[in-house]
Amino acid sequence: MSSMGPMPDIRDESCSIARSLGVLGERWTFLILRDAFEGLTRFEEFRASLGIASDVLSARLATLVDHGVMAKIDYQQPGQRRRHRYVLTDAGREALPVVAGLQAWGDRHLPREEGPTVLRRAKSSGQSIHIGFVDETGAEVALDDVEFVKTSSYPTERAELLARSAAHPR
Amino acid sequence: MSSMGPMPDIRDESCSIARSLGVLGERWTFLILRDAFEGLTRFEEFRASLGIASDVLSARLATLVDHGVMAKIDYQQPGQRRRHRYVLTDAGREALPVVAGLQAWGDRHLPREEGPTVLRRAKSSGQSIHIGFVDETGAEVALDDVEFVKTSSYPTERAELLARSAAHPR
Repeated sequence: MSSMGPMPDIRDESCSIARSLGVLGERWTFLILRDAFEGLTRFEEFRASLGIASDVLSARLATLVDHGVMAKIDYQQPGQRRRHRYVLTDAGREALPVVAGLQAWGDRHLPREEGPTVLRRAKSSGQSIHIGFVDETGAEVALDDVEFVKTSSYPTERAELLARSAAHPR
Repeated sequence: MSSMGPMPDIRDESCSIARSLGVLGERWTFLILRDAFEGLTRFEEFRASLGIASDVLSARLATLVDHGVMAKIDYQQPGQRRRHRYVLTDAGREALPVVAGLQAWGDRHLPREEGPTVLRRAKSSGQSIHIGFVDETGAEVALDDVEFVKTSSYPTERAELLARSAAHPR
């Protein structure tokens, strides 16, 4: 999402994907999260990594802090002025499968000659890992076994649009 | 990403996350994918769902088609003019964990009083499913057992930035 025009207030969006994008989907935000997962914490580090204007970075970090994705923590070295750093909250860390999913998708579908810069692995077993769907027992669920079930909160107007689309001759 | 200014050519990006965002991260694109996963295929359906300008929708669909995420398929009903529809390719379908991950994250961290509109479930077992990391045996890997290992293609300049950050007093 961008400064092209206002999205509706994200809290009004019935779609969780749209709400998530309201917080995480601004230009640069996924890359800020990438940097945070790689250990960057200070404003100047994010700026050096991303090469973006300070006001844009400030705005993106403020959105993340406002929505509890990152926390802004004051710290002070003896004899220096107070500074702060930005760290992922639990909510932020839970976005890791999305960020890693973007990475894995890019590795596979937009590959470079040099190969991937990062591999995803289980520390304990050393096995290569991927991002997927997992059931309550911790077992992977195949893509074609995944089902999205509409609840009674699903917007009627949208359900009708989908029904009309499904009825349309192919 | 947005029309605020050009991203570098995505093929030049060493970071797979940045490359994926070059294709999938434009404003509206994740919502186009959401719509496609829900079964919408025609331009007018996407437009009705998203309420965006035709030129923006055209541009986003063209990017997805150009990068092999969606395919544009001609069809013709007897006596009608030729039309086309947009369907997810295999590469597009493989973005499902990312889209579903955004949905699940929003359900959890930006909840609404009415509850989620969609639940994710395994068809075969009826079990609730989530998005996570899976090893080669199909077993879930806990977040704190996930490791990102830099390869020899990892950009030197960025590795140095991370090292300086790690050495900085906290």
